[in-house]
Amino acid sequence: TQSRTLDDHYAVGISSLYNIALIRFQGAGIVGRYGVIGRVFEKLAGKKINIILVSQVFSEHSICFAINPKEVELTKMLLHKEFSFELENRFIDSIQIEENLSLIAVVGEGMRHTPGIAGKLFGLLGNEKVNLIAIAQGSSERNISFIVNEQDVKPAIRILHSSLFSGLDKLNIFIVGTGLVGTDLIKLISQNETLIICGISNSKKMVLDKTGINPTVYQDELENGQEADLDAFITVAKNTPNSVLVDVTSSSTVAEKTAELITNRVSVVTASKLANSMDQDYYDAIREKSKKSTAQFLYEANVGAGLPIIDTLQTLLSTGYTIIKIEGVMSGTLGYLFNEFDNSVPFSELVKDARKRGFTEPDPRDDLNGMDVARKILILARETGARLELTDVTVESLIPEDISPDLTIPDFLEELAKYNHLFSKKLEEARTLWKVLRYLASWDGRKAKVSLKAVGEENPFFHQYGKENFIVFTTKRYHDVPMVIKGHGAGAEVTAAAVLGDILKCKK
Amino acid sequence: TQSRTLDDHYAVGISSLYNIALIRFQGAGIVGRYGVIGRVFEKLAGKKINIILVSQVFSEHSICFAINPKEVELTKMLLHKEFSFELENRFIDSIQIEENLSLIAVVGEGMRHTPGIAGKLFGLLGNEKVNLIAIAQGSSERNISFIVNEQDVKPAIRILHSSLFSGLDKLNIFIVGTGLVGTDLIKLISQNETLIICGISNSKKMVLDKTGINPTVYQDELENGQEADLDAFITVAKNTPNSVLVDVTSSSTVAEKTAELITNRVSVVTASKLANSMDQDYYDAIREKSKKSTAQFLYEANVGAGLPIIDTLQTLLSTGYTIIKIEGVMSGTLGYLFNEFDNSVPFSELVKDARKRGFTEPDPRDDLNGMDVARKILILARETGARLELTDVTVESLIPEDISPDLTIPDFLEELAKYNHLFSKKLEEARTLWKVLRYLASWDGRKAKVSLKAVGEENPFFHQYGKENFIVFTTKRYHDVPMVIKGHGAGAEVTAAAVLGDILKCKK
Repeated sequence: TQSRTLDDHYAVGISSLYNIALIRFQGAGIVGRYGVIGRVFEKLAGKKINIILVSQVFSEHSICFAINPKEVELTKMLLHKEFSFELENRFIDSIQIEENLSLIAVVGEGMRHTPGIAGKLFGLLGNEKVNLIAIAQGSSERNISFIVNEQDVKPAIRILHSSLFSGLDKLNIFIVGTGLVGTDLIKLISQNETLIICGISNSKKMVLDKTGINPTVYQDELENGQEADLDAFITVAKNTPNSVLVDVTSSSTVAEKTAELITNRVSVVTASKLANSMDQDYYDAIREKSKKSTAQFLYEANVGAGLPIIDTLQTLLSTGYTIIKIEGVMSGTLGYLFNEFDNSVPFSELVKDARKRGFTEPDPRDDLNGMDVARKILILARETGARLELTDVTVESLIPEDISPDLTIPDFLEELAKYNHLFSKKLEEARTLWKVLRYLASWDGRKAKVSLKAVGEENPFFHQYGKENFIVFTTKRYHDVPMVIKGHGAGAEVTAAAVLGDILKCKK
Repeated sequence: TQSRTLDDHYAVGISSLYNIALIRFQGAGIVGRYGVIGRVFEKLAGKKINIILVSQVFSEHSICFAINPKEVELTKMLLHKEFSFELENRFIDSIQIEENLSLIAVVGEGMRHTPGIAGKLFGLLGNEKVNLIAIAQGSSERNISFIVNEQDVKPAIRILHSSLFSGLDKLNIFIVGTGLVGTDLIKLISQNETLIICGISNSKKMVLDKTGINPTVYQDELENGQEADLDAFITVAKNTPNSVLVDVTSSSTVAEKTAELITNRVSVVTASKLANSMDQDYYDAIREKSKKSTAQFLYEANVGAGLPIIDTLQTLLSTGYTIIKIEGVMSGTLGYLFNEFDNSVPFSELVKDARKRGFTEPDPRDDLNGMDVARKILILARETGARLELTDVTVESLIPEDISPDLTIPDFLEELAKYNHLFSKKLEEARTLWKVLRYLASWDGRKAKVSLKAVGEENPFFHQYGKENFIVFTTKRYHDVPMVIKGHGAGAEVTAAAVLGDILKCKK
């Protein structure tokens, strides 16, 4: 194989030569025996045996060189004949042959006097678990050659090719989901020239282009793209180095592939809570794979959208804080509803209005059932090291039990109106105690809970406003003054920004 | 030089050979001319010329080998004679010699079949800007050899030695300052086995030990240590790879060395605000050096102690937020004083009491003059890209102008009592408007300001409690719901934890 480019500073070509054999012999008899290396190559030259690569290293009693495997038998015979005396007398230990090897050469004008290029190359290969059997880099030659096992050639070429040609500091981004967050994310990414969008997919169509999709006209390309096929999409991501798969869907399709992607060195950045709130075994599997992989798994947007909740919690834990309690208003929608709810308008009308204004999920039951918040507190609890399932979270749903789950959205909203008195009553009861209603999630180290609570002025959540997310970390170190992070915790733009923050972290 | 260890998985030795010469010749005449390499080495062998390293790479018409420079003239003569025909007919372009080179060999049993070891080695060398002139790694030999310029030998050996022998993932920590934060930090570090304390210094004594200082008995070692000498201390840090210098002093000695340390590949983690609040030129110089260096400069503890203020601001900026305003209670001490101050006790008595309880600086004027807060808002403003000096920050000092700056601490506190009525008056004025007093710092994109303000219930700082630090970021994206981070913002333990967080980030 051969690939060339002219506009790259470092490398202008990567060549590979499959099927070579490595001859190696060593022994005390080589040291100080000035003739050995000359005798070897003189003999081989006599039979027109081409030497592909030579490597002899200082202080080792060893010579190694690569030849065409067709010439192994002849070489062996020649060497045994030439060195019969040394072999018999153990001046040379033995002549060994390794086959099924391949040679890869990276050639480029700019490589000489570019400190670090070998390091970058071999660093990349090390990340790919490519075992280097022999290396040769010639002086003043813009060439680094190395021998690898046959099965390592493809991954080695892939990583080298893409890294050297697309730049070592660029990330190749594959986005799944083109809803509001996806759209905002593409806008943000388009402003950063180190991020190359190589793939965009929604549930219907996908477009793939390793050279980069123009983010300003991607919609046309996507409309005329191929039929969506997540497996095919993922396969391209796997075969692209420095790749990051971004999940901005609300479906579990990518979530279920997370462990596999990480294993295959594709970093995963997700706004979706699904991967982190599936069963504990899957959660553990992702962590297990992450440990062994250079790929990262990042999900800052899982809780509090644009607020630095996950990162802060991870830093607290890694710097020796013991978490006593995590508590918060973790739904912008429910935060808003209970801030607005003052009995001037019935609760169901408030929900209807919020839905119209785009503040709720398309089906407001997805907010009211509390499951979104339950997933968030589960994720935070697991972050602290706790092992529990979504079913272990006690959830107080705001959907009255008697309402059939089979209703259409408008019918549900009509039905909800019949229960307005229940919400009114709760509010009045709270008011008589000078309290306000807050839909709170909490984890106290043993129990995760989501419920509607009446809180008084002494409670920090009394001062939660509007769509604000409001999270409180109480730690052993400073339980008297807990840490509070709050702010706009919903909306496509903040979520997209949080996802971008995670993407930038993948650059290490 | 030669160094060996037995208990390392990867490498058991690093050897270097100074003063070698590299002979290289190339040309179309070598390709397919099976005899060339043999003829070369046969000739050299005839004169007992020892070949230190050979490297011939695939697809390049080139051979290169290293010899003792004493034999350069003889080699040249021999080769010119042997290849006179090829040279005349341009089958061989020319025979070139490079001198003043050195060879470094890394030898180890565990290196074979350890994918990535070459990458790690060369990656480290690349970071050190070591230019690799030739490389040879023999098959099945646990040996990687490479040729570098003479002047690169020392840095190369240093980085290899320490990295291979102390582990690639360990950080070598040099701590300056053994006050409350330093003491807590050493405690925290002792719980992390990837962090090796190689140096501890205070203003009087220092102890240095590259193999690691036992954190449980460092106090004895320090007492019996050598006289403190920051330059000598820094020199050791510079000569230790993966080193982090931690500044937990309140003096400017380390701050003034920050740019130099970064340039010399020593990461700097600081709790001190001085480096970031010196003149703009120095601030810029540190950033400039950081860009060119692999070393990091981290200072999360500069603002809000244990609160994630700097990191959050940096993430906001890098993900496209435009900062409209940063405002906050950024002094735990002043936050506490104005929370406690209710006119039941005169202001000066409150200060005296807070000092007794260790809540103020030893000299409370260091809190009351507002300069500590001024430095914090300057640092945040500069983080947003603004260029301004400490003198550009408008600071309302809480020390009455008429009090002489030359007083002793007790005399100052007596003198302050004469001004209690001024503080009482301010509080009463605020109270009549249902307001509270808060010592606030702010940056609005044009002006940095620190002043005592009366704030009403509509203001978020109305709900600032105790020693809590309370920072509000108003951004263009969501100016209606600003981001708030608050919590315990003072104290040695939280500051030490924030410093530890930064140290862990240096591991990349």
